[in-house]
Amino acid sequence: MPKISEERKAERREQILEGARRCFAEHGYEGATVAKLEREIGLSRGAIFNYFPSKEDLFLELAMRDSARMSEIWVEQGLDAVVREVVELDPAWLAVNLELVRRVRTDREFHARIEERQTRLTPANRAKLEDAQRAGEFRSDLDAKEIGTFVNLVLNGLALMRAGGEELPPTELVLSLLRDAIGGARRDTPLRTPA
Amino acid sequence: MPKISEERKAERREQILEGARRCFAEHGYEGATVAKLEREIGLSRGAIFNYFPSKEDLFLELAMRDSARMSEIWVEQGLDAVVREVVELDPAWLAVNLELVRRVRTDREFHARIEERQTRLTPANRAKLEDAQRAGEFRSDLDAKEIGTFVNLVLNGLALMRAGGEELPPTELVLSLLRDAIGGARRDTPLRTPA
Repeated sequence: MPKISEERKAERREQILEGARRCFAEHGYEGATVAKLEREIGLSRGAIFNYFPSKEDLFLELAMRDSARMSEIWVEQGLDAVVREVVELDPAWLAVNLELVRRVRTDREFHARIEERQTRLTPANRAKLEDAQRAGEFRSDLDAKEIGTFVNLVLNGLALMRAGGEELPPTELVLSLLRDAIGGARRDTPLRTPA
Repeated sequence: MPKISEERKAERREQILEGARRCFAEHGYEGATVAKLEREIGLSRGAIFNYFPSKEDLFLELAMRDSARMSEIWVEQGLDAVVREVVELDPAWLAVNLELVRRVRTDREFHARIEERQTRLTPANRAKLEDAQRAGEFRSDLDAKEIGTFVNLVLNGLALMRAGGEELPPTELVLSLLRDAIGGARRDTPLRTPA
């Protein structure tokens, strides 16, 4: 095998991951056969599995990147930005994640692998939340963990509705109601004058 | 074929549906082969498909019953009861629904069939919501539809987290935050004294 530079390797990894994401989104996880992955990625199975030993590893790497990205947006830009991000995610890709929910619950090994890679409330997210509580952005009569799981609940709901092609409530409404639930300030003015 | 009384037919329909639900929950929708459905239901494929022409019809009937049940709980017992119901649903059965989300979005005919059977905000639910708004239980500066879709969002989030075996936020916390978001009264007392 010819030697490949580190840079070239990194490029190839990206090529594989991008192609795999498109392929999963188009055909579903089960539907993404090795032949389809080869076609979409533009590399042979040998080349692909040289970087990722299995389809499962490809999926897990993509899922881990999603988590890391969400976590980063939360820490760098705050909660509103995370909500805005989720409502823009590709429904086809979200549905791939749903296809695997059964397996997350029933396959112990897969569960462990996904847990390990998932960003729930990371220390950085928690610190950010606690800062926001101190600054009065979020209410301080709840633990950061309680606020975090409620936000997670709303994000899960948005993701599921979007994956199924359901009409989402307007983002501004979601943000406003979320602030009423977990925001530091009381709701002083109604969104609209009562009819 | 011997004649079967209407009562016997209704019983058999229930037997089929109960067995199908167990079978889907255990093996997933794709994994529930006709042979497995026969075994779990205790009837031959001929007998089963005499009542339901396809696996899809079996699933749709079960999904429709879920929707009708949720709608009934909402109307008869109110929102808190619906939330309490969702957090108790069988995770394995919820995951079957998730497995089909991709198909809901990509298969036009399946989408139409599921839409037709789904209770989003039925007239009865909407009337109940509007009554609750007038009674001051829910805020009146939003449309009943806006309140309904936000509740739906939270229920979707609970269902997804439960299907994946994630730790749910405590039900009392969810209800309390939901009331802060859409309840008629302002949050007057913190859940706990700030630390």
